[in-house]
Amino acid sequence: MTALASLPPPPATTPGAEDALAALATAVRIDLEACNHTILERMQSPVALIPRLAAHLIAAGGKRLRPLLTLGAARMCGYQGPRHIRLAACVEFIHTATLLHDDVVDESRLRRGMDSANTVFGNQAPVLVGDFLFARAFQLMVEDGSLRVLEILSHAAATIAEGEVLQLVTQNDLATSDDRYLDVVRGKTAALFAAACEVGAVVAARPEAEAAALAAYGTDLGIAFQLVDDALDYTADQATLGKTIGDDFREGKITLPVLAAFRSGDAAAQTFWRRTIEDGAQEEGDLAQAIQLMARTDAIATTLERAAGFAARARIALEAAFPPSALRTTLAAIADTTARPAP
Amino acid sequence: MTALASLPPPPATTPGAEDALAALATAVRIDLEACNHTILERMQSPVALIPRLAAHLIAAGGKRLRPLLTLGAARMCGYQGPRHIRLAACVEFIHTATLLHDDVVDESRLRRGMDSANTVFGNQAPVLVGDFLFARAFQLMVEDGSLRVLEILSHAAATIAEGEVLQLVTQNDLATSDDRYLDVVRGKTAALFAAACEVGAVVAARPEAEAAALAAYGTDLGIAFQLVDDALDYTADQATLGKTIGDDFREGKITLPVLAAFRSGDAAAQTFWRRTIEDGAQEEGDLAQAIQLMARTDAIATTLERAAGFAARARIALEAAFPPSALRTTLAAIADTTARPAP
Repeated sequence: MTALASLPPPPATTPGAEDALAALATAVRIDLEACNHTILERMQSPVALIPRLAAHLIAAGGKRLRPLLTLGAARMCGYQGPRHIRLAACVEFIHTATLLHDDVVDESRLRRGMDSANTVFGNQAPVLVGDFLFARAFQLMVEDGSLRVLEILSHAAATIAEGEVLQLVTQNDLATSDDRYLDVVRGKTAALFAAACEVGAVVAARPEAEAAALAAYGTDLGIAFQLVDDALDYTADQATLGKTIGDDFREGKITLPVLAAFRSGDAAAQTFWRRTIEDGAQEEGDLAQAIQLMARTDAIATTLERAAGFAARARIALEAAFPPSALRTTLAAIADTTARPAP
Repeated sequence: MTALASLPPPPATTPGAEDALAALATAVRIDLEACNHTILERMQSPVALIPRLAAHLIAAGGKRLRPLLTLGAARMCGYQGPRHIRLAACVEFIHTATLLHDDVVDESRLRRGMDSANTVFGNQAPVLVGDFLFARAFQLMVEDGSLRVLEILSHAAATIAEGEVLQLVTQNDLATSDDRYLDVVRGKTAALFAAACEVGAVVAARPEAEAAALAAYGTDLGIAFQLVDDALDYTADQATLGKTIGDDFREGKITLPVLAAFRSGDAAAQTFWRRTIEDGAQEEGDLAQAIQLMARTDAIATTLERAAGFAARARIALEAAFPPSALRTTLAAIADTTARPAP
């Protein structure tokens, strides 16, 4: 068994979504290989620790979901040139930079089923290597030469940071409204999904309305993806998910299932959530208790239902703007399956 | 006495350099005011913690050294438009982002004589607000619309990160060569000085040779500035310097004075440096001992001499490329005084 074959499965997607993503990867296989080549080539630096640390994340077998969206969107838009490959690598660099910084901020122990970068390298190097990858992404965009692409991705980067800070502000606060939580998600997750998709239309020089439609598809897909991820953190088991189960719980992270379980819980449940999420006073067995409490309410079902709503909107945005094609079907299937966990 | 009046003086410059910098600030006073206005305006965000945290650093009274270089260089190049103002703000945003991340990496307690952002806000928010300011800097550059400027500053940002990672790698290692240490300085400090100056020529549409001359001036000025800063960390007192004295020592940071003191020290001194810098086993009184040991060698003098050499090169690069002018004199004076601490 090779090292790669022994890697855990990719994190936080449903089996159906895995299939849809695999179909997209197959449809743009040559582009994806070129993109992986660009990623490996452009994460190099004379400072050896940089590629070593970056490889730690990249070897951990990311799904390349975001660059796949760029590649798929560009091809669906009829683009025939090579620019989308470099821009897909930019998207992955920005994503990797935010992962490195997130893990420092969250003090995560695992990432994609392996020790996270901060567990292996401490907090210092991941902050700086994240900065490097972020800067390198902008260098790649400058080489591409499109100010419109630079505008989209610099705006996305600022929005991601705003979402992350907002998440920090709402941390531990059970009075957070669903809308405010969705604002967090729009920033920390959906902004890069939207930009990744929109860039595909821009590189193909499609009209602004099509770029906007792809941005809308990406936004709603990103929200659906995050809500499913939030639900899985309280339902999937660690071996399947490839990330530490209950990370969100231990960090006192406010997510939609927690808000739903808190609001529909009885007095004892509310006391439990206040102690564990608001006061952060967690004891042995609390995670199991949280999962049990969650199962007793419709918190998970409600969250997945909302996810399905966003996924449906994503499909509608896509189908309203683009004629039928194999790639449109594939992108629509990603939206459908993201929010429909296998039974 | 107002809150501002009670602020400590700006950090890590010599009194002579203060005067030269004040002269530059006076020469471009209206531009500087406009730049400060842009900084305050563009660090805003609907997420209130972002401007609050950014203001913590900005209220701490930075000297605006790097944006002043952009403003001064642009004006020396005869530029009459408004673009240099926004680009000077970009430079300050990138600088502020690196300060926020540095303080997390270094676990610094003070910054500009006040509690550093990570002391007040923890590690989480400074990482994310740094990311925001970095992204915002790129948004401002996109608004400016020059791919050449984007190229210069994205390259600088990648080089800064490389320098910071290299510094991490050499941390605690007394076998670091002077050249390798200077590579660290070229990255972590000089790259942004160089970019800040070069942008001034680019915005004025001057020939490439003049842009290169300003980049060379900035590089050597930045190296001189850092070497003087390194020396002051073992010589100035905390009240004057406005930063925690001995920070470099406590972090086991390899700097030129330490390398010089180690190499010219006797066996007892070398044992002391190995214990305190390499092994990080520091005890009460070690900083005083380090300062005493330093004073017994020519470590400080050697460091300042090398700083003076770089400053002289900076002046030469400037004067070889530009005709005499009031601003050329002012920029040359900054180089001269940076490396010539008042007696």
